[in-house]
Amino acid sequence: MDKVRIIEVKQNVLANNDAEAAKLREELKKKGVFLLNLMSSPGSGKTTTLKRTVQMLSSRYKIGVMEADIDSDVDARAISETGAKTVQLHTGGMCHLDASMTKQGLDELSTDGLDIAILENVGNLVCPAEFDTGAVKNAMILSVPEGHDKPLKYPLMFSVCDVVLINKIDTLPYFDFDMEKCREYIAMRNPSAVIIPVCARTGEGFEQWINWLSGQTDTWKNTKE
Amino acid sequence: MDKVRIIEVKQNVLANNDAEAAKLREELKKKGVFLLNLMSSPGSGKTTTLKRTVQMLSSRYKIGVMEADIDSDVDARAISETGAKTVQLHTGGMCHLDASMTKQGLDELSTDGLDIAILENVGNLVCPAEFDTGAVKNAMILSVPEGHDKPLKYPLMFSVCDVVLINKIDTLPYFDFDMEKCREYIAMRNPSAVIIPVCARTGEGFEQWINWLSGQTDTWKNTKE
Repeated sequence: MDKVRIIEVKQNVLANNDAEAAKLREELKKKGVFLLNLMSSPGSGKTTTLKRTVQMLSSRYKIGVMEADIDSDVDARAISETGAKTVQLHTGGMCHLDASMTKQGLDELSTDGLDIAILENVGNLVCPAEFDTGAVKNAMILSVPEGHDKPLKYPLMFSVCDVVLINKIDTLPYFDFDMEKCREYIAMRNPSAVIIPVCARTGEGFEQWINWLSGQTDTWKNTKE
Repeated sequence: MDKVRIIEVKQNVLANNDAEAAKLREELKKKGVFLLNLMSSPGSGKTTTLKRTVQMLSSRYKIGVMEADIDSDVDARAISETGAKTVQLHTGGMCHLDASMTKQGLDELSTDGLDIAILENVGNLVCPAEFDTGAVKNAMILSVPEGHDKPLKYPLMFSVCDVVLINKIDTLPYFDFDMEKCREYIAMRNPSAVIIPVCARTGEGFEQWINWLSGQTDTWKNTKE
């Protein structure tokens, strides 16, 4: 329990967020830290996905996790059980994180020696998509119970994501979820998005996800600007 | 298809939203129209719930539905199949509706002779909770796959709702959802919230929900200020 620090992050209303985000990304490049911004609806499985991701990658990379929530620290406690460095960011009612809030979190987490930093954004398919957090890549989770029509309804979220995990595929038999239609709708918004069906609870599909994430991390760490 | 009108609603940035909402509620009182604001995460079953609600109440009340979405008109088309008057509100990227946007929708829907107007808000557990739409009552849907911990993470949403439908209870065997914990967490946020477990797909639990909604409607229509 005492491992989890809780930070109240404040939006910098005067800042130009795009400039702040670009500056943050440049700093991360110098330090060789890969920052992933993970977004989704409430309850789509971000924390379970993160726990398994950290467990599968922790022998190879040093990973830090920032858990953003309006309130509570249940997610940060769950993640800290994996042994990853974890901070809880409280947004004070804010529905998203911007680059300056992300930087406050990274400063608290400390990026020294870190390979991968993961930001678990606020559960919301609308607002987080509008703000560049400074992340190198954006990932999102769409879970089967939410339905395959979500790319039609939340276009910006799908268009800003580099990778979409379709989670809870173990529940496909119980929902009217059309995987082919879902792929088609995502491609309408973002033809280059990588789509990976997974089950965070059982680990199905995680090999591809872990390969994607480690490939992106190695590329980021090993290529010059 | 041509039954669905699409309205681009704009936020009135200068207005005092609370005052606008109170004014709208007063107008609705005079006209005897009960306005319900229905909120939830993306994919929790708002549209399926609404379809069944309209079907069960349409012999008794004249019902109009406003479907708010950032983009697309899939929900409005689904609702218009029930025969209810339907308009699609496009929020132009906005993550919530305020009272002035709701009023634009009601004007387009036309409240003449209407008993119940239902606003399906944008799928989002954060921002919609912050804006009084002018509704007489707020309802929200939490679906089983989202998890029983949501009241801990999205406190404001649960505290502003008069009734919480816990949807997709047919999937309880496939998820780690603790109904008693969920009730306890909701009560922490809002001790007077009415909690109704339902399955919108099969109709389980709908009798209680329909009783609640018709009771509220009759009270609103038949009591003087």
